[in-house]
Amino acid sequence: MATYMDVHTGMKGVTEEQLREAHRADLAIEADEGVHFKQAWADPESGTVYCLSEAPSAAAVQRIHRRAGHPADEIHPVPLTIQ
Amino acid sequence: MATYMDVHTGMKGVTEEQLREAHRADLAIEADEGVHFKQAWADPESGTVYCLSEAPSAAAVQRIHRRAGHPADEIHPVPLTIQ
Repeated sequence: MATYMDVHTGMKGVTEEQLREAHRADLAIEADEGVHFKQAWADPESGTVYCLSEAPSAAAVQRIHRRAGHPADEIHPVPLTIQ
Repeated sequence: MATYMDVHTGMKGVTEEQLREAHRADLAIEADEGVHFKQAWADPESGTVYCLSEAPSAAAVQRIHRRAGHPADEIHPVPLTIQ
């Protein structure tokens, strides 16, 4: 398992409820790929959403996001973490 | 206070120690601007670093990062958060 940060663009005007619903859609199927989405942050003004996950691969993250209807534009492994 | 995600690019090959040192440099002066850097993630392969902070403004975040020697390439307010 590794940690990934993925980035969605083009989500201008995203609302709190839309973000929560998108996250719920991911959570509902994430176990199929051994993924867990842990945190998410959205900037409605620029339309950027960041998702932090633990997953076996970037491809697994993308498969869940795609099935949930919101493929990521970038997925970065982030092996270095400070928290 | 608001939540910000900032992004640094061009940091290919960044090491755990370099990330920790950069974070320490931020923490040492962040109170001057009422900023607190909470989490950070780095992808050494693409050279991307994400920092999550609480701050009074994006400009305050940038002033700390700049004084610490690593200005951000993007700073996004992220008023919507899931964690």
